[in-house]
Amino acid sequence: MRQSALFTKIRREAPKDEAAKNAQLLIRAGFIHKEMAGVYSFLPLGWRVLNKINEIIRRAMNALGAIELHLTGLQNPTPWQASGRWSDQEADFWFKTKLKNKSIVGLAATHEEPLVSLLRDHLHSYRDLPFCVYQIQTKFRNETRAKSGLLRCREFLMKDLYSFHHSQEEFELFYDKVRSAYEDIFKTVGLGGRTHLTFAGGGTFSRYSYEFQTVCEAGEDTIYLSENKGVAVNAEIINDEVLRQFGLEKEELVPHRAIEVGNLFNLGQRFSEALDLTYLDEKGNKQPVWMGSYGLGPSRLLGTIVEVFADDKGLVWPRSLAPFLVHLLALRAQNPEVKKFAEKLYEQLERVELEVLFDDRDLTAGEQFAESDLIGLPYRVVVSEKALTSGKFEIVSRIDGSIESLSLDEVVKFLKTKHV
Amino acid sequence: MRQSALFTKIRREAPKDEAAKNAQLLIRAGFIHKEMAGVYSFLPLGWRVLNKINEIIRRAMNALGAIELHLTGLQNPTPWQASGRWSDQEADFWFKTKLKNKSIVGLAATHEEPLVSLLRDHLHSYRDLPFCVYQIQTKFRNETRAKSGLLRCREFLMKDLYSFHHSQEEFELFYDKVRSAYEDIFKTVGLGGRTHLTFAGGGTFSRYSYEFQTVCEAGEDTIYLSENKGVAVNAEIINDEVLRQFGLEKEELVPHRAIEVGNLFNLGQRFSEALDLTYLDEKGNKQPVWMGSYGLGPSRLLGTIVEVFADDKGLVWPRSLAPFLVHLLALRAQNPEVKKFAEKLYEQLERVELEVLFDDRDLTAGEQFAESDLIGLPYRVVVSEKALTSGKFEIVSRIDGSIESLSLDEVVKFLKTKHV
Repeated sequence: MRQSALFTKIRREAPKDEAAKNAQLLIRAGFIHKEMAGVYSFLPLGWRVLNKINEIIRRAMNALGAIELHLTGLQNPTPWQASGRWSDQEADFWFKTKLKNKSIVGLAATHEEPLVSLLRDHLHSYRDLPFCVYQIQTKFRNETRAKSGLLRCREFLMKDLYSFHHSQEEFELFYDKVRSAYEDIFKTVGLGGRTHLTFAGGGTFSRYSYEFQTVCEAGEDTIYLSENKGVAVNAEIINDEVLRQFGLEKEELVPHRAIEVGNLFNLGQRFSEALDLTYLDEKGNKQPVWMGSYGLGPSRLLGTIVEVFADDKGLVWPRSLAPFLVHLLALRAQNPEVKKFAEKLYEQLERVELEVLFDDRDLTAGEQFAESDLIGLPYRVVVSEKALTSGKFEIVSRIDGSIESLSLDEVVKFLKTKHV
Repeated sequence: MRQSALFTKIRREAPKDEAAKNAQLLIRAGFIHKEMAGVYSFLPLGWRVLNKINEIIRRAMNALGAIELHLTGLQNPTPWQASGRWSDQEADFWFKTKLKNKSIVGLAATHEEPLVSLLRDHLHSYRDLPFCVYQIQTKFRNETRAKSGLLRCREFLMKDLYSFHHSQEEFELFYDKVRSAYEDIFKTVGLGGRTHLTFAGGGTFSRYSYEFQTVCEAGEDTIYLSENKGVAVNAEIINDEVLRQFGLEKEELVPHRAIEVGNLFNLGQRFSEALDLTYLDEKGNKQPVWMGSYGLGPSRLLGTIVEVFADDKGLVWPRSLAPFLVHLLALRAQNPEVKKFAEKLYEQLERVELEVLFDDRDLTAGEQFAESDLIGLPYRVVVSEKALTSGKFEIVSRIDGSIESLSLDEVVKFLKTKHV
């Protein structure tokens, strides 16, 4: 894409009403726009990153055999009343609104109730189980404070997966598969090493729940981590019993600030009993369905990536998520030879299906470099008078600063090997 | 996909609380679920169709040079107050809700105001124009009555494109390109012949507005159509002046019920003046931006397709939108030879990347055929004892009922030519 065709502009100054590093940088670089605290629009560069995250998640969900669907934002109160999560005393997350006839409806912060409710039309026999469904859908959550940019929003994108089983044993086998799919996702987006499966028992729903927590100073949570034993526990639930359960000594645990990037809940029969989702077993007896739910927020993950990888020059994108792989700069584009050559290289890179952001604007070299650092694409290639004379082009890695000086053919070959 | 792995079940009876044919059939066939009047969840089959529509639209928008972004559902009142569309007296479409601190926010029914508002951070010079952006995003609209299934919803998917220009002349050139892109979209989804560019001047925003109207009995609108002259006018605005303007005689106009499937608005400077979106021209003078907006609702389009093509046996999908191209039926799947053969054929079709729904369930032939008719995939292939004996397999077209009797190799070849 030509940068001259991208309507977003870079800002030099951080927005004054934004404390979080992730939102500051993403706003400055034109990836997002703040509509109000905890509510952000995704501008073209941000939307590209978010879609790459969604596709990574989607592939992982499809590989689990999960089928995609799409539930609604507006929520009928009935199933929520049945489960005991409708009133503001029972659940603190609601935005509520009124139809023209004055009846009150909610905006979904999660979807256990409507999903279980609609499945009563479809699930009858033991032959219909197990199965799992997921969606990547906008959620609304009436947060009292929303100060962490994309890490805690009032409106955000969520991947929510739900699984339905004959029994707890069957659920547990599937739970392990989801855990492993989540580990792959965090590895793919570059957070593998610092993301830990964390015991968070006593979660919203059941005695057993786990989270994936990414170690990061910007996190709102604290986890206790034993690197040796590969065990992490959320600070909120740690006590002597938990230590005993995991065979841990207090001394070996190191506290870390962390961001909850995913969660896995054993819902048991809580919702199937409240909403009467049953199946007939082989003997013709009614049985409540055993359920699991598994959350992973693409927009929070995007914010986490920024918090973890950005440096003092700006954003730094892993190759798997970068809005473009290459930032091609025509330095002093008013020089017709530079311009012509850069245009040719741009076409050549597009032809081999590399994702290129082509800075064809007539700015100073200083501005071009500073903006390029802020946007943070993995590789920068510069076409300049000097490069044309020497026949050597510099490819600079935004991730580690390494520089390759290559001939034109080698530039194309090198970048092709970096394509994700 | 194996039908045994699809959790949705077919219903024999139409839901009692649903008057619209599109919603009745889509619910019976397991494509959607009604959460409340005008609010529908998309189940896997429906979600597949909706995504195909989205991709057709997305390709057309990208070809126009439009860049995708994603604005928010929750709306800050400030820009809407500035444009005069915040109070319920001024605009009848609002759902409103409250943050925890009691301040009121809205749910977006459209996005002119927030988009114009955010562009003030990015648009400065005549060099920044023209450009256009679009999104495919959920809208909320507080309809008093919602009785037409997917044709008029309280929550629905909308593609909204917005263009920004130096002048009216420049806008008009772009407007023609969008009109032509819309014509291509309606042709691709099979509605070309019955969809008419319809004058609807005096629309919400400006003296000139056009709609695309699809002739269909289920439509809420009436249009007057002169087939000869290729001119259509919305009944709401027809009068002597309009007749004169288009050189029409009353006698040549035939009234038709129709569904508004798209619209094109000349917004002029209404929003840029109200919200102070200006650019500096070449002489350094401030100028308000000239705008257009262009709507097309994927979920309404889906409902329209059903209304237009469905027959008394059920849904009928054009190839460009069908959730799967082929319905492969293993007739009497309890026969191990039939089962084995059907499995092999299923694998073979998947290998050549055809989209196949494989009915591997153990139902009666009557049930399988009736369900297959209801779901309405373009081609049905039956593996039965008879077919195995004769070596001839019937491919039945759901669209025109034509039957081809082919050998196994020919079946695969035939279907490959039908792949969209």
